Amino acid sequence: MRRITLAKYKIAVFTSILVLLGSASTAFSKSDTPGQPKISEFKLENGLQVVVIPDHRAPVVTHMVWYKAGSADEPTGKSGIAHYLEHLMFKGTTTVPAGEFSAKVSEIGGQENAFTTADYTAYYQKIIPSALKMVMTYEADRMENLILTDETVLPERNVILEERRQRVDSNPGAILGETSRAMLFKHHPYGRPVIGWEHEMLALTKDDAIAFYDKFYTPNNAVLVIAGDVTREMVETLANATYGKVKRRAEPGKRVRVSEPEPIAAKSAEYFDKRVTSPSWRRSYLVPSYNQAKGNDAEALDILAVILGGASTSRINQKIILGDKSATAAGSYYQGGSYDMSTFSIYGVPRGDVTLATLETAIENVIANLIENGVTQKEVDRARNRLINTTIFDRDSQTTMARMYGAVLSMGGTIETIEKWPERVSGVSVEDVERVAKNYLKKSRSVTSYLRPEVTN
Amino acid sequence: MRRITLAKYKIAVFTSILVLLGSASTAFSKSDTPGQPKISEFKLENGLQVVVIPDHRAPVVTHMVWYKAGSADEPTGKSGIAHYLEHLMFKGTTTVPAGEFSAKVSEIGGQENAFTTADYTAYYQKIIPSALKMVMTYEADRMENLILTDETVLPERNVILEERRQRVDSNPGAILGETSRAMLFKHHPYGRPVIGWEHEMLALTKDDAIAFYDKFYTPNNAVLVIAGDVTREMVETLANATYGKVKRRAEPGKRVRVSEPEPIAAKSAEYFDKRVTSPSWRRSYLVPSYNQAKGNDAEALDILAVILGGASTSRINQKIILGDKSATAAGSYYQGGSYDMSTFSIYGVPRGDVTLATLETAIENVIANLIENGVTQKEVDRARNRLINTTIFDRDSQTTMARMYGAVLSMGGTIETIEKWPERVSGVSVEDVERVAKNYLKKSRSVTSYLRPEVTN
Repeated sequence: MRRITLAKYKIAVFTSILVLLGSASTAFSKSDTPGQPKISEFKLENGLQVVVIPDHRAPVVTHMVWYKAGSADEPTGKSGIAHYLEHLMFKGTTTVPAGEFSAKVSEIGGQENAFTTADYTAYYQKIIPSALKMVMTYEADRMENLILTDETVLPERNVILEERRQRVDSNPGAILGETSRAMLFKHHPYGRPVIGWEHEMLALTKDDAIAFYDKFYTPNNAVLVIAGDVTREMVETLANATYGKVKRRAEPGKRVRVSEPEPIAAKSAEYFDKRVTSPSWRRSYLVPSYNQAKGNDAEALDILAVILGGASTSRINQKIILGDKSATAAGSYYQGGSYDMSTFSIYGVPRGDVTLATLETAIENVIANLIENGVTQKEVDRARNRLINTTIFDRDSQTTMARMYGAVLSMGGTIETIEKWPERVSGVSVEDVERVAKNYLKKSRSVTSYLRPEVTN
Repeated sequence: MRRITLAKYKIAVFTSILVLLGSASTAFSKSDTPGQPKISEFKLENGLQVVVIPDHRAPVVTHMVWYKAGSADEPTGKSGIAHYLEHLMFKGTTTVPAGEFSAKVSEIGGQENAFTTADYTAYYQKIIPSALKMVMTYEADRMENLILTDETVLPERNVILEERRQRVDSNPGAILGETSRAMLFKHHPYGRPVIGWEHEMLALTKDDAIAFYDKFYTPNNAVLVIAGDVTREMVETLANATYGKVKRRAEPGKRVRVSEPEPIAAKSAEYFDKRVTSPSWRRSYLVPSYNQAKGNDAEALDILAVILGGASTSRINQKIILGDKSATAAGSYYQGGSYDMSTFSIYGVPRGDVTLATLETAIENVIANLIENGVTQKEVDRARNRLINTTIFDRDSQTTMARMYGAVLSMGGTIETIEKWPERVSGVSVEDVERVAKNYLKKSRSVTSYLRPEVTN
């Protein structure tokens, strides 16, 4: 169990749209390639959404269940319960003892994993096709029959607390990141850490987990993604025979979350920690997500992130790393994959004796120059090609494909969202990029984080 | 009605403990003055707590009802509902038409007011003693019989929205203050504005108001304070005859709010607004309130606020305003009156061409000097005397007395809290002040706000 335990329980960071939508070109071309089976979807009577991604290159199947519930759906004061429940989902059901499901997967040489984000919680197994029915039976079983007892629940709380210690408390960048994120989302629940605030984690109970489970773990709030050496017909038969028997346990309906007031001030957070080996600088802007953006703002932000600092030819790389050599690392990225709003971030690690203030000015000059003088068609073309081409490398990964579909569907998107992505990215113009740079890269929409090695008052 | 409407509906800012506990010395000495009737309290069978503050100098009575429910008790996403309900409490009951209560008070030359904070909502009338029964009858009636219709509720929403526009949106300092407060309280509901976030106010309904009313407006969650030309016996008879008939409508129990994680980063917010006529600087620290503090930390913070910047002889005044003349106004204050944690703030308005950065350095030097070199016994004595003496001036105000008792009791304190305050303040030592300065005036516990006149990117 230890081996499995270590591999499992990953809290995914907000996955970049580059990853989420990354294989879109693949999906796109695959659908259009004669002879290649199409990606298809259907719904069971109980509301479970099913996506089938045929991939016959190897006798392997990826099986994933995505629940449209993450840390941002937690009740106030119960931070961490979404992730805690993810752990507790391995504690057995009315008919299956704790650990049996994991042991069976392991026995046939399969892999399993689970992860929680602000928007979803997902469970997956990578297995041989003949084990698919077994895995579906187990996964469907724990969708409605989970049993929690204090004997299994309380020790697991120590596991998540230890996980917090390792991921956050022992990592100065993560400590500062929590505060900066809470400042960027000063009202929206994205401001709370996925793993939970420690003092609230300490008070989480079995009943809290069951309440979250009973509210959100129901077929009509889940997406089943099966990728690999399967056919749609086969999946349809198996899904009906397993998940089809799970009753609708709740009606969570459309997600209702508080929304964030428009940002008005340039915010900053400075954190000193003796454990910091090199100082670093980061500025995150509040921007729309793919799910929320108007027009092609999200696609344009993806292009902007590449032009500004997402490639070796990007401006930050050219100016800051290669040019004045003020940073050893610097760049920018857009995390467009979320149900509500997203972030656009720029970061830098100063070289040698360069101060954070000097590096900040250098980066700010690059941003100001881009906003003032715009971008070129050549830059847009190069960024678009890079975005689309990079993703082609993902097509070999069945898991990445399955993950992309699961994530996009869990965050309000559709299969079309994915299939049309390359087309939409290709339609981004110079003016689009300049517009989003001007509208969103405003200091008044941002939090700047300064991570410093000394301790001061 | 317009006249009354204009006077009413005040959102109280966090009242300083100087005001809340201000008349404590009065209460203290009054109780000990032979022949002076004592302040007393009792409880009705339905749980209503009653405080009687006899004051026979004039034929005037102050009648106040305090509900232990404020903006920090609102459900997530319903910001502003506590204050909205305050407005709606004037819209009539099953037997009393809208406006009748206010008209009656006005008819007899009385005054009325109401206010909402993060911790409580209070209603008061100042009247002639013969009108007390009438006022108690009306106030008891609207404790359980409020009737809301869309015809009265919806237009009032425009009133609170207009109030927000006037108080916040037309005031750059208030706009920045909202953001800074949300950064200081990044998890606790004190981070949300009492008046509400505009986008949430726009969606508040009659049902939201009724839900808040039904949850919190019940005798066992209220404090009745009657000060003035009354006797305890008289109040007891009247209270039983009026409020005594109100049933326990709910059991709100002990307040449960999420608590704030320990602050770790020095935070800042910079806001530019064309309407700013002079720039200003403010730093607010997260500190314990009187209700929450261990030992005499709260009393010591009150003394510290005077020594640092609460009097003409204070260090900030001497150094910054009179000394290097870098500010036209500067000072510090401790807002210790709240149910959960509080804030300690230092502010400054630079003189002429002095920059905010220069002023900040000057003020930071004063703070650093105090922390490094401590304070003197003479400073502590002077501050204590000032704190206690200042409050003596409050004793003439019956309303201030009533308000102090109502606020302290609504925020978790007792009559003893008030009566023992001068004694506890007198016990604060040099070491106590130095300890709280060292423990709490850490930049990592603070948000610094920069309000600037220009508009920039």
